[in-house]
Amino acid sequence: MAAEIIRGTELRETILDEVAEGVKTLKEKTGRPPGLVTILVGENPASLSYVSLKIKTAHRVGFKEVQENIAEDVSEADLLALIEQYNRDDTIDGILVQLPLPKHIDESRVIDAIDPAKDVDAFHPVNVGRLMLEGSSAPFIPCTPAGIQEMLVRAGVPVAGAEVVVVGRSNIVGKPIANLLLQKGRAANATVTVVHTGTKDLASHCRRADVLIVAAGVPNLVHPEWIKPGACVIDVGVNRVGERVSEKTGKTVAVLRGDVDYDAALGVAGWITPVPGGVGPMTIAMLMKNTLKAMELRTL
Amino acid sequence: MAAEIIRGTELRETILDEVAEGVKTLKEKTGRPPGLVTILVGENPASLSYVSLKIKTAHRVGFKEVQENIAEDVSEADLLALIEQYNRDDTIDGILVQLPLPKHIDESRVIDAIDPAKDVDAFHPVNVGRLMLEGSSAPFIPCTPAGIQEMLVRAGVPVAGAEVVVVGRSNIVGKPIANLLLQKGRAANATVTVVHTGTKDLASHCRRADVLIVAAGVPNLVHPEWIKPGACVIDVGVNRVGERVSEKTGKTVAVLRGDVDYDAALGVAGWITPVPGGVGPMTIAMLMKNTLKAMELRTL
Repeated sequence: MAAEIIRGTELRETILDEVAEGVKTLKEKTGRPPGLVTILVGENPASLSYVSLKIKTAHRVGFKEVQENIAEDVSEADLLALIEQYNRDDTIDGILVQLPLPKHIDESRVIDAIDPAKDVDAFHPVNVGRLMLEGSSAPFIPCTPAGIQEMLVRAGVPVAGAEVVVVGRSNIVGKPIANLLLQKGRAANATVTVVHTGTKDLASHCRRADVLIVAAGVPNLVHPEWIKPGACVIDVGVNRVGERVSEKTGKTVAVLRGDVDYDAALGVAGWITPVPGGVGPMTIAMLMKNTLKAMELRTL
Repeated sequence: MAAEIIRGTELRETILDEVAEGVKTLKEKTGRPPGLVTILVGENPASLSYVSLKIKTAHRVGFKEVQENIAEDVSEADLLALIEQYNRDDTIDGILVQLPLPKHIDESRVIDAIDPAKDVDAFHPVNVGRLMLEGSSAPFIPCTPAGIQEMLVRAGVPVAGAEVVVVGRSNIVGKPIANLLLQKGRAANATVTVVHTGTKDLASHCRRADVLIVAAGVPNLVHPEWIKPGACVIDVGVNRVGERVSEKTGKTVAVLRGDVDYDAALGVAGWITPVPGGVGPMTIAMLMKNTLKAMELRTL
């Protein structure tokens, strides 16, 4: 039997509709919508396209959206001052600084400067710490792990008591999703193993997994024989493996592949997320959800 | 062959001598020793005995030690004001609030009030977050996980690439030691699994472990057949299982047992820590090390 495909593009629509509803309710109560500022330094094409999508989505759910597009050569002090301005602005609930930043700016200093109550990416050490201490009771869960958990919930994947194996230990995906799923809570309370480049036998760990979360950044790393029959496979990888001409627009676009050999895995897994159209769309939906929550926590 | 016993009581002496050396050097450079304030609310006997030991040890390594013993019925506001006073006191490098606090006081509000640069217990969310983000490069590692890692280093237990299984997911031991050992660094870069009350087959996970760290708080939870021959077994449990009369003092004292069936495990494990005299003494030694480091970070 072929795996059930968990389509992030569809779940995203449901979640964004829910957020738009929440925005309406909040606006009726408080007289204003949630405010999100996106701060983009320089003109990195990938960053530009991410930020555009975030702005578009913010508009769709009814947020007030403020764009700060700053020159590549902005000083760190000026960037910190801008953040401080939005920390103090009561109409702004979420502050998003698009990473990476130019090399002359210390990223962690910038993240530390964001008011944790407006840190909708959940990258501030205070929010990272609260995630480890409180699991899903933390005020903000970083968007990609939150999106993965939401997919597990909405697809009805059993997580409590399951064997979860996380491939990769990044600060953005591997470490937070492991910390989230090993704690008590909805779609959590799992036995979690984190494997990585220092792991001796990757394949045997993957084969144990009821839920396999792969965030390694290596195209086709996970072969079908690494997957336990019926397991849920969440593919977080987004690897550019080539280019093609889009039929729709005639433009050259990147060909994306995940970390899992998708076509082969389809015949083994019980659930699987595609790339593109899987975890990616969830991340932006969860950013909107975090921003709505930030306003709720700040005002209600 | 019987397991090598990793004696925390002996390692503690070595570490305290190193700290005392560091204190001398720092005093020559700055004209003052590190300052540690211990704040004890009420008269819980266990807390009293922990704090006395911390004070005694602080004196031994040459710290300035300030004792704040406050009445059980202190208001939260007054306790917060006291912490703020020591946050501002330049002769104090470490602030230790002995937990648990009386029920009318919100523990997390108290911990949040400590200046993270003086948080030598490493319980502040900022320090918890930095541990998850930076591993052993974080400014402070909480004392028990730091003590465990130090034991692994000094006993020469291979950790890089090893299978580590952590039993228990407390905020004080299980979660931080897992986060520490899964990252790159000295005595780290291990494949880490966290198992807990929600885990289906505890025994089979334990049997996979090259390094088994048990912090469950259940006496004799780990049977010898759960231990891989030659594995390193770190027993963090401190369970009061009865009372006896001390030969030395004639007083009634608690009989302590770990989470591991120690006598039986001795014949299977490659290394093992006893209870008492294993991880416990390391915790206090690491508190002294953190306080020294706090002064170094604040002044050098």
